[in-house]
Amino acid sequence: MALPAPAGDSRHFRNALGAFATGVTVVTTRDGADNDIGLTASSFNSVSLDPPLILWSLARNAASLPAFMQCEHFAVHVLSSAQQDLSDRFARKGSDKFAQTALNRGPDNIPLLADCAARFICRMTYRYEGGDHIILVGEVIDFEHNDQPPLLFHSGKYGRILPKLATATSDESISDYLGLLLGRASLQLYQPARVRCSTLSLSEAEYYVLMALADRKPRPFHAIAELIALGGFQLTEQMLAPLTTRGLLETVTTDSDPCLKLTTAGLDLVVQLAAQARASEEQALADIDPQDRLLLKQLLKSICRNTVPVTL
Amino acid sequence: MALPAPAGDSRHFRNALGAFATGVTVVTTRDGADNDIGLTASSFNSVSLDPPLILWSLARNAASLPAFMQCEHFAVHVLSSAQQDLSDRFARKGSDKFAQTALNRGPDNIPLLADCAARFICRMTYRYEGGDHIILVGEVIDFEHNDQPPLLFHSGKYGRILPKLATATSDESISDYLGLLLGRASLQLYQPARVRCSTLSLSEAEYYVLMALADRKPRPFHAIAELIALGGFQLTEQMLAPLTTRGLLETVTTDSDPCLKLTTAGLDLVVQLAAQARASEEQALADIDPQDRLLLKQLLKSICRNTVPVTL
Repeated sequence: MALPAPAGDSRHFRNALGAFATGVTVVTTRDGADNDIGLTASSFNSVSLDPPLILWSLARNAASLPAFMQCEHFAVHVLSSAQQDLSDRFARKGSDKFAQTALNRGPDNIPLLADCAARFICRMTYRYEGGDHIILVGEVIDFEHNDQPPLLFHSGKYGRILPKLATATSDESISDYLGLLLGRASLQLYQPARVRCSTLSLSEAEYYVLMALADRKPRPFHAIAELIALGGFQLTEQMLAPLTTRGLLETVTTDSDPCLKLTTAGLDLVVQLAAQARASEEQALADIDPQDRLLLKQLLKSICRNTVPVTL
Repeated sequence: MALPAPAGDSRHFRNALGAFATGVTVVTTRDGADNDIGLTASSFNSVSLDPPLILWSLARNAASLPAFMQCEHFAVHVLSSAQQDLSDRFARKGSDKFAQTALNRGPDNIPLLADCAARFICRMTYRYEGGDHIILVGEVIDFEHNDQPPLLFHSGKYGRILPKLATATSDESISDYLGLLLGRASLQLYQPARVRCSTLSLSEAEYYVLMALADRKPRPFHAIAELIALGGFQLTEQMLAPLTTRGLLETVTTDSDPCLKLTTAGLDLVVQLAAQARASEEQALADIDPQDRLLLKQLLKSICRNTVPVTL
């Protein structure tokens, strides 16, 4: 859909510009009154290799405009994926942006932030007319960088980068079936728990019942039934009897329904089982970063939604 | 590690610039001899909302420089994640870049590519000095965009964007355990196969044996054993006997070891079972895009590597 870009109604134009993904930078300098100045900018880009030039754009109505119209040096910090808080802080108005931030100092005492994905210390080279912005071009006189993953900005939201994966070829071997991969991952992840349950003479269904009460909340029968149904088990009164007999489970009567809760002995056991489950999970996810862990759980939840619940 | 940015040795500087992730654009125009001109550029960025201005940089030694020094209009196409081939094609030298590409025409007959994440038709407004590049600023006179995911470029490689997910809160409920999510996803995904196997009086292990031979290759006993061990099953000669008796499996003697292969009847059955497995997988992954499917399988393979194989 082609739209005109009328001045005044700039929302559509902003949205279209947002289709171009960028990294996020914080640009810093120091003003004539020796104040540290800094702001978040995504309008950065490279210009020239020889001489080494970069550019970014600053709004004419920015509070920091006078500082950048005067300064001889500035620094551009390319933020890593772990520095979203810096992006948020330097995007706000206010004077305490540098509070409690470890700083180094560059030429003219300009503030330098640490731990960025890249940092460019620049001498101001050109200031060009750019409508409601000024295009600032700097010659890079020093820089550093590391291999941290970058913070991204796209369509008004933060993002992170994932490498493009080679397109899946039709792999007819059994080891590429999602079912087998899920089955194998599940089987292997649960193996320590399975061995432990065997030692404790707990069935898998009994294990689920105990884990369903791990948060110490008394629960009525039907609530436990719902939780363990997710694991494919159908709860019966007969299943609960051995757990009660072993002193792991007790019935408490509250205002409403009778509820089941763990006894002190039951809680002791569940704390151990839960610690083991978490440890198994940690081992299984050892080399998987926190964002990928979240994504994995989201994808598994999607698969659960897309398929039909099972009761064995 | 701070490094100087010596002219001439620009590799380190290039690498540092690569830390800033960008989208990818193709910029097009038409030269004085009525040739379509186009090139891939990641140096695009927004400049001004009112007037609506964007910029990008072009190398002074680019073959397309004369065209862009003369033209009054150009178009910037922000590429979607599906348009990596366009990026590659317009990054190469040569004159056949537009061959077999559906084109529309803009002002001065400039070529317009279809199906991009965004497209900006611009009137050339400023050409600024930028070292070994020229900074080209255009006023956007028309634009369109859609919500396709963008193609990204970072550290010399293509990438794709993933939204930043909210940080995981410590969820003590059983439904956030990876083990349960994997178990439930696996259970639900396999349920149609399980029902089918039950109808066919096939055990789960027999199902795995048949699927392990789905590619029609005769395999020796130990190779089948290795494949079904991934599913947690230990292969025995006794397990194979019923499949042979039912006429699904036969032994063939090749140059080396005796091998097992599917009979015609076995193959017919496996084709049906494999089709069902693929259909279940397709349903489970219905709303998950191809790149996330690949990532999911990679993550599941990581979990399999990080945990210990199990034989039931």
